[in-house]
Amino acid sequence: MPMPAQSETGDPLLLTPGPLTTSRSVKAAMLHDWGSRDPAFIAMNAEVLEAITRLAGAEGSHVTVPVQGSGTFAVEAMITTLVPKGAKLLLLVNGAYGHRAAKIAAVAGRQPIVQETAEDTVPDLAKLEAALAADPGIGHVFVVHCETTSGILNPVADVAAIVAKAGRKLLVDSMSAFGALPIDLASVPFDALAASSNKCLEGVPGLGFVICRKSTLAACAGHATTVVLDLCEQQAAMEKTRQYRFTPPIHCIAALHQAIGEHAAEGGVAGRGGRYRRNCSVLIEGMRALGFETLLPDHLQAPIIVTFHMPADPRFDFQRFYDGLKDRGYVIYPGKLTVADSFRIGCIGRLDEGHMKGAVRAAAEVLADMGVQHPGRRKAA
Amino acid sequence: MPMPAQSETGDPLLLTPGPLTTSRSVKAAMLHDWGSRDPAFIAMNAEVLEAITRLAGAEGSHVTVPVQGSGTFAVEAMITTLVPKGAKLLLLVNGAYGHRAAKIAAVAGRQPIVQETAEDTVPDLAKLEAALAADPGIGHVFVVHCETTSGILNPVADVAAIVAKAGRKLLVDSMSAFGALPIDLASVPFDALAASSNKCLEGVPGLGFVICRKSTLAACAGHATTVVLDLCEQQAAMEKTRQYRFTPPIHCIAALHQAIGEHAAEGGVAGRGGRYRRNCSVLIEGMRALGFETLLPDHLQAPIIVTFHMPADPRFDFQRFYDGLKDRGYVIYPGKLTVADSFRIGCIGRLDEGHMKGAVRAAAEVLADMGVQHPGRRKAA
Repeated sequence: MPMPAQSETGDPLLLTPGPLTTSRSVKAAMLHDWGSRDPAFIAMNAEVLEAITRLAGAEGSHVTVPVQGSGTFAVEAMITTLVPKGAKLLLLVNGAYGHRAAKIAAVAGRQPIVQETAEDTVPDLAKLEAALAADPGIGHVFVVHCETTSGILNPVADVAAIVAKAGRKLLVDSMSAFGALPIDLASVPFDALAASSNKCLEGVPGLGFVICRKSTLAACAGHATTVVLDLCEQQAAMEKTRQYRFTPPIHCIAALHQAIGEHAAEGGVAGRGGRYRRNCSVLIEGMRALGFETLLPDHLQAPIIVTFHMPADPRFDFQRFYDGLKDRGYVIYPGKLTVADSFRIGCIGRLDEGHMKGAVRAAAEVLADMGVQHPGRRKAA
Repeated sequence: MPMPAQSETGDPLLLTPGPLTTSRSVKAAMLHDWGSRDPAFIAMNAEVLEAITRLAGAEGSHVTVPVQGSGTFAVEAMITTLVPKGAKLLLLVNGAYGHRAAKIAAVAGRQPIVQETAEDTVPDLAKLEAALAADPGIGHVFVVHCETTSGILNPVADVAAIVAKAGRKLLVDSMSAFGALPIDLASVPFDALAASSNKCLEGVPGLGFVICRKSTLAACAGHATTVVLDLCEQQAAMEKTRQYRFTPPIHCIAALHQAIGEHAAEGGVAGRGGRYRRNCSVLIEGMRALGFETLLPDHLQAPIIVTFHMPADPRFDFQRFYDGLKDRGYVIYPGKLTVADSFRIGCIGRLDEGHMKGAVRAAAEVLADMGVQHPGRRKAA
């Protein structure tokens, strides 16, 4: 076996929904300490938050409020700050992240109303329109931009148009898409959009953020049912002192500052998205040539993560496949999905076409080791 | 002016309550990426959590549950997971962190009962005992180990004895003390103790944790009013899969793994605490020799952070003092406290006696620049 593939820092390549492979220079930005209340850090942090707002074409009307923790912390902060206690939130659900948002709303004492479609099916827009028309008590709608469960791209612009026409507020979870798939305020008029440092922006994990319409946020004081996830209080502190309320993850923010510079140098959303689309094409074409089948048709596939059906060939053993890829330097998501009998391979992070070709070659080798010639598609039990 | 002081990575020295100066090797541990569901990361994370439990002498009966975010995220997770909705929590408050915990309880719909003493005064133990005797509805008591507002060391063992005798549950915020001041389960029988990666353990900020009595935690399912801060669900996931529910801050955890190794190499809690005590002595003796006065008497002073009265001399200008120290490589907490008219200098992080002597020399130089000969103590307005 040849030398395993490795990242710039000698690590296995991460073909997962996150954590992702990041550049050496992004990680090297963490080799310093900063006082979080010192002007040097304050300036760096402000640049990060302003750049994020600009990426959504939302400067002026919106502000980016940081939330420590993984992306789910930002989603929970968004829901519990914007939706008052006891109020109704309609959620368009076609995967685990939509279900998680509904659970967040329920646990926090909001009223989730779930409109669910299958994981390979986009939301039912007519049903959304009808529900909003029928119940004026539904003040907010939640949609996932790219549902990482399957990798499906949801029609956020169409959803946004319906929600705007009905005069309701739109909450978008753009976690795995923001920075690579365009989501501009002009085409997707959102009240709040949650994303994080470690997906398509290619920073390290540890900071989420919510891009909030200022007028919406201003009306939300007192909604929050936690202290740490209260976006209003964080934004009030940021306006008054330009500081975090609590010790921020300074190294993660320094890495994100570097990552946003590298994102701009690559050509912003268009450049980053272009690379991921090439990665995704190489992966899908290569895996199909080996006999694998994708869960999604191409027109629903976001260039973020690809779900493949588990092969029919009984000689295919997923753990051996995972281990064989890892031995060759490629770490994929370690586990079958519960929904379809399937597994996932990501195409985001500091990866290029060469890496994806290498991953496909590695998959071919592991198949050969297992004696699998025609993976095919396992029938549902 | 001579070259400014600097850390191993060329940064100003942080004499603050956090973020702290960390070692180069701790930061260098962040120069890699890991898959968070891959065995290599899982093993490293398990070592971190088990080492923390051992530091509290709590292995067997307790388990360490990680919480992403700053220490306050861990405090909120501790309170809202252990105290049921609507239930009473008695809080011993003598500073901002006690007040913040009371606010957390109130916002989350718990019933905070605050017993407050002045910031330079330890809790009133007789009053605590009486309150617990008078109201059997108080199920939980909250105390701050070292209240960073003033730097006061609270008598947690005495509090624990009273709470145990009354058959109630004890929640400890040991944020700024854990790892440097001994807090062993044998002498302080706690049900939950919250701390974080970036204080006396000298990791980078981004991960809190709560050391929970397993039997207590097992009885808390369904208490939480958030998803992300639910310690029961996180622990259930960790027991089942050894994994985080949401993408963890892998770099921060790798840094903490390195930091815990360096903590052990320094002699554990005794070694770390010994260095901080020497730092604190050098600082206090040096500053007193310059004419500064401490807020706290020595017997109440924890060797974590020292509060000094603002000088009486009208030529003393705090912003010039802050800037002058920063120019010389020492970053202190930038701002007066609201409580007493005072400022604070920390003595934790990767700092030694030489650094503290340097800070005192820098303070002397800045005083001379301002023409202040006898700082003294400003009278309350």
